[in-house]
Amino acid sequence: MKFASLRNGSRDGQLVLVSRDLRRAVDAAHIAPTLQAALENWVELEPQLQALYAQLQAGHAEDAFDFDPAQALAPLPRSHQFVDASAFLNHGRIMDEAYKLTIKKTPGMSVMVPRQGDDFRGPRGDYEFPDVEDQCDFEGEFAAITDDVPMGATPEQAQAHIRLITFIDDVSMRKHLIREIQIGFGLIQAKPATIFAPVAVTPDELGEAWQNGRVALDMRVARNGKAFGHPNGREMDWSFGELIAQVAYNRRLRAGFVLGSGTVSNRTYREVGSACLAEQRAVETIDHGEARTPFVQFGESLQFEVLDDAGASVFGAIDVRFVQAARAAG
Amino acid sequence: MKFASLRNGSRDGQLVLVSRDLRRAVDAAHIAPTLQAALENWVELEPQLQALYAQLQAGHAEDAFDFDPAQALAPLPRSHQFVDASAFLNHGRIMDEAYKLTIKKTPGMSVMVPRQGDDFRGPRGDYEFPDVEDQCDFEGEFAAITDDVPMGATPEQAQAHIRLITFIDDVSMRKHLIREIQIGFGLIQAKPATIFAPVAVTPDELGEAWQNGRVALDMRVARNGKAFGHPNGREMDWSFGELIAQVAYNRRLRAGFVLGSGTVSNRTYREVGSACLAEQRAVETIDHGEARTPFVQFGESLQFEVLDDAGASVFGAIDVRFVQAARAAG
Repeated sequence: MKFASLRNGSRDGQLVLVSRDLRRAVDAAHIAPTLQAALENWVELEPQLQALYAQLQAGHAEDAFDFDPAQALAPLPRSHQFVDASAFLNHGRIMDEAYKLTIKKTPGMSVMVPRQGDDFRGPRGDYEFPDVEDQCDFEGEFAAITDDVPMGATPEQAQAHIRLITFIDDVSMRKHLIREIQIGFGLIQAKPATIFAPVAVTPDELGEAWQNGRVALDMRVARNGKAFGHPNGREMDWSFGELIAQVAYNRRLRAGFVLGSGTVSNRTYREVGSACLAEQRAVETIDHGEARTPFVQFGESLQFEVLDDAGASVFGAIDVRFVQAARAAG
Repeated sequence: MKFASLRNGSRDGQLVLVSRDLRRAVDAAHIAPTLQAALENWVELEPQLQALYAQLQAGHAEDAFDFDPAQALAPLPRSHQFVDASAFLNHGRIMDEAYKLTIKKTPGMSVMVPRQGDDFRGPRGDYEFPDVEDQCDFEGEFAAITDDVPMGATPEQAQAHIRLITFIDDVSMRKHLIREIQIGFGLIQAKPATIFAPVAVTPDELGEAWQNGRVALDMRVARNGKAFGHPNGREMDWSFGELIAQVAYNRRLRAGFVLGSGTVSNRTYREVGSACLAEQRAVETIDHGEARTPFVQFGESLQFEVLDDAGASVFGAIDVRFVQAARAAG
């Protein structure tokens, strides 16, 4: 199944099922008014949602309409818990080499970044930030969304609670990142609101690309419409189940929990490129002694998309323009 | 006004208004079904809520009933964004002196800790954690809850969006804290679910104890019923408005945002004691070269309460027992 939440004036949007080819949609609000509500009652509601999805796929769903990603909020417009992993160790290796970092990682465990879930952004429109001196960057990542996961869940148990997969642009302000890592208690100004793909899909929609709890597809990133990088998700050093279990060690994870993979990064980065500027700039620093690629400036746009082996878009595309924030109105 | 959310089988509970003396309550669900809903429409709904509260105070509210804190969830049982500050610098000074820490704080800014909001705990019952070797501790803190705060809000603007004040026990696992601070990306296993007082109150309920955006009342902490410490909230080094504005620098804060003060700590700590074990243990380390107070063991209970100048409980009491977690059921 594929899900989106459409603008309807509410904070959670209107839940719709979207056809596999992303062309058509049908209102699912009579089954669950919001994706949050669907996740809270997933096991009960899944058969009805599957039946409606089958009708939509067969072209028999009443009141189906054309799906317009410009009307989409984030699939889950807000979450009560969002944790971002750093599960592609290749990214860390490049950063460490370029900047002689000495981050004391715990052996066998991914770095985890607690994040805010109150203002997930949809896939189109403008993204405001106050100052280009903050060094605006992007990070193309995959993300898993769960229903309730009990405390102490094993990786296998945790993986069985993954109900949806999507991708995100984890917008990052690099100037604040270095400062906040040195403080050591977490990232605030380094990590403003996160941008989501228009559609989240059940793992079965990925077919053979859902491999060992990883998304074995390319994260295609473009800057101002020009290809930037396309690393593949299969090199994730932990499965989503393992990452979720790490977080669940001494806490319950409640329905709507979002776990990000960290920026997708491959050992073949010299061929496939990167999913964030920081990594590209680190490679330039290793090669030339200095970074040459500038951070995101006001007026630039970024595009992210994930295609299946047949070249079809799986989650729809992010295409967002970055602009200067207006002053607060009070 | 004073608010609580009572158990009704739902994740958000049933919104009630509670009388100033915490004895009586009345259902407010016909005005707003949940506290989250009230916060999303605060300006519109406040007059109706005030009218009902006036009836309750006058003893005229129909269907009023005895308030039982054992039936209370957290006042806001879940939030889409919870950030915990560290706004009592005295606490950091003691920790730095005892353990020769060299945390690189940003001058003029509080340390901020992004946290999870999906599983806030109510004021009674058992709190499960897996292992006493994790070094279970408590932190008595005040907390502010806002409606929507725009990006870039000034401290004055941010303070005007504070709708409710409450207090929390920020449960902490010290063994993981040191490890996770060294990694530098945020706290996960160090900071499991947070326990809330039964009642949240509008700032006007604090009367003269609401001073410059601070709660000038003692945080009374007891361990197994025996007094442990009672530091006062007036020594907070930033106002709640300043702390919230710091977080809002480059992000919108959406209704239901929770900002914790960090553990309450006073310069007169040798007279008033501490609101967490870590600080008490640090004082012992300074005095005796070693910590003597043990961390929380299975079977222990903790009590927190805040009294006004007349000796009346403002938010009700936390009284929770700490027990070993059962294994995950799947």
